[in-house]
Amino acid sequence: MKKRILIALAIFLTVSIQLNAQQSLWGAAGDVSPEVKEDNTVTFRFQAPNAKEVKITGDWMPAQSWTPGSESMTKDDKGIWSYTTKPLESDLYSYSFLVDGLKTTDPNNVYLIRDVASVFNVFIVGGGKADLYKVNKVPHGTVARRWYNSPGNSLTRRITIYTPFGYESSKEKYPVLYLLHGMGGDEEAWIALGRTSQILDNLIAQGKAKPMIVVMSNGNVAQEAAPGESSLGMYKPTFQLPNTMDGKFEETFTDVIKFVESNYRVKAEKSGRAIAGLSMGGYHSLHISRYYPNTFDYVGLFSAAVMPDAKVTSKVYADIDGTLNIQMKNGYKLYWIGIGKSDFLFKFNEEYRAKLDKMGMKYVYRESEGGHTWTNWRVYLSEFAPLLFK
Amino acid sequence: MKKRILIALAIFLTVSIQLNAQQSLWGAAGDVSPEVKEDNTVTFRFQAPNAKEVKITGDWMPAQSWTPGSESMTKDDKGIWSYTTKPLESDLYSYSFLVDGLKTTDPNNVYLIRDVASVFNVFIVGGGKADLYKVNKVPHGTVARRWYNSPGNSLTRRITIYTPFGYESSKEKYPVLYLLHGMGGDEEAWIALGRTSQILDNLIAQGKAKPMIVVMSNGNVAQEAAPGESSLGMYKPTFQLPNTMDGKFEETFTDVIKFVESNYRVKAEKSGRAIAGLSMGGYHSLHISRYYPNTFDYVGLFSAAVMPDAKVTSKVYADIDGTLNIQMKNGYKLYWIGIGKSDFLFKFNEEYRAKLDKMGMKYVYRESEGGHTWTNWRVYLSEFAPLLFK
Repeated sequence: MKKRILIALAIFLTVSIQLNAQQSLWGAAGDVSPEVKEDNTVTFRFQAPNAKEVKITGDWMPAQSWTPGSESMTKDDKGIWSYTTKPLESDLYSYSFLVDGLKTTDPNNVYLIRDVASVFNVFIVGGGKADLYKVNKVPHGTVARRWYNSPGNSLTRRITIYTPFGYESSKEKYPVLYLLHGMGGDEEAWIALGRTSQILDNLIAQGKAKPMIVVMSNGNVAQEAAPGESSLGMYKPTFQLPNTMDGKFEETFTDVIKFVESNYRVKAEKSGRAIAGLSMGGYHSLHISRYYPNTFDYVGLFSAAVMPDAKVTSKVYADIDGTLNIQMKNGYKLYWIGIGKSDFLFKFNEEYRAKLDKMGMKYVYRESEGGHTWTNWRVYLSEFAPLLFK
Repeated sequence: MKKRILIALAIFLTVSIQLNAQQSLWGAAGDVSPEVKEDNTVTFRFQAPNAKEVKITGDWMPAQSWTPGSESMTKDDKGIWSYTTKPLESDLYSYSFLVDGLKTTDPNNVYLIRDVASVFNVFIVGGGKADLYKVNKVPHGTVARRWYNSPGNSLTRRITIYTPFGYESSKEKYPVLYLLHGMGGDEEAWIALGRTSQILDNLIAQGKAKPMIVVMSNGNVAQEAAPGESSLGMYKPTFQLPNTMDGKFEETFTDVIKFVESNYRVKAEKSGRAIAGLSMGGYHSLHISRYYPNTFDYVGLFSAAVMPDAKVTSKVYADIDGTLNIQMKNGYKLYWIGIGKSDFLFKFNEEYRAKLDKMGMKYVYRESEGGHTWTNWRVYLSEFAPLLFK
């Protein structure tokens, strides 16, 4: 018996010491970065005794045109570089280090988000609007990655679907928000960068939004799935893909709707359908909702690209004004346009609104600060979702 | 009309040029890394003109004890460091760069996997056993992240569940494999590092495994969810957590089974239940299967830790020999033990097998090359799953 106890002890110690050793050898430096403090200042630390210069670049820093800002970090006598921000407004932020000019991730922060071909560290400063993106102790919905058949694209395609807490055990029919990503995104964009499941969990728990299913399809119809998730393997993602703004996605969107309405317990009617998207996804939402002009009672254009390239010949864009008119006459409950004052698409949205004004087509307009950013899109989603299915 | 076309063109060009500009400024150097070639050699590239020394460390390199191997990279006249491997055996590999001694991720590779508090780049060399882990053009199952109520832990907890292709549209009942992670892992480990969904998709498509549900629960009962997915926010993960090997998980595993059997269309009987796990998860599988000695017809111990710490007083470990005996007498279809020859747990597994031999408790033994690695655990899963529910 004594022997068994000794063996047991030996195993436990061996496992824990050796695995810890493995961990620390392979692991990050034993420091905390980022450290979000009570006063909303954030300290970053990076151990690099031999580096000549370490900077930090973060999306809270003022950018010059398209060049993100950066700040110098300071080295201490242990070779640890650090930098502390001013108090930051509540939000989800991304950043990288620049070590002697080379962009690198923070080895102390395992929270990373891919945006097209780049990977950034992220952190959250709470106590404000980011409390909407946080995981709170509230009932949580389910996030499923599924595959649906798209005969229109001759592909089986991956799709991300959020079902709200209670869906599985309920017998009720749920309304559906189709939520579309921008150029460079895919079926992972809204769930990762957009924090859709957290935003919906929180809004629903607070009674601010109706329980709804959120369908995040992939708007790049040439793709089976997000990079790394398809039979193409782990290739390097590119920003622009073929067939994203040529009418094909709009035309084959009925495949998505059919899949959802035959696989989920949903309100398969206009009053139970919303469509919204950011940038290219706003463009898709605009054109899908007027091309199928009696399908959606709720439309959201977040920093939307609006008009197709003149070279595109798809029948989807053959009669934009005519189909908008039909959409208007068929009626809808909400046509929501949100854009930031410094968004490079601002003036095109202004022109689009002028067009709608001229037609007499009603919309709700939300002008925010800032530009073409996820910060805005998360806020737009959290303002748009509560207006749906009421 | 002409004006509209011009505006449309302007929008398209503005969007694509400006977004591309944003991308390239924030993005990685315009090179491919890693490049997996026809002959299974792999070339890595890293742009760092000012670095004095760049090395690469990868898990295919011979390690000295717990220190991973590394190799020097060579700089060309453009400041790009490169390194080409010998032909590699088909597998999923992980690696990092060491730039003047600092571990960094490869900015050209967006495929990253977190293991506890470290993040590594990964790539796949196909044409052999890794073809089992690849996404192939086969019918795909669904992967859902859900939350279940665990009264035994007074927590709502996150769980990852794979349902095979066809589950949603079928009326049949499916068998269930409960698949448990090791120390430092969580409900993401088997799906990310273990490539469970790809392995199951492929085995099922080839007719090698029966369609089955795979339930990947979180074995750290003090946790609601994987780091970053719980109300604790984005904290720095640690390797060892309380209450992982003290009987609590085994005792409350009935909460997991109850959730699965009341929420999924499953064969809720011994012949429809398998349990397997790696390292700590092998320990959990051993003890859960004997503590509930008439519950599982299939048990898999992958590089398992075997015996509890002598200090642990849980009733779960009060009568190991007695409950093993009952489990043996109740009968089961498969008790599978797999371990690598150089695994640091090898001798404890040897002793455990001697114990089973002495008792007359039958098992299938699989001794592989290598040690305590995901390479082995992916292979064990792909060998174990085909033996189930036949």
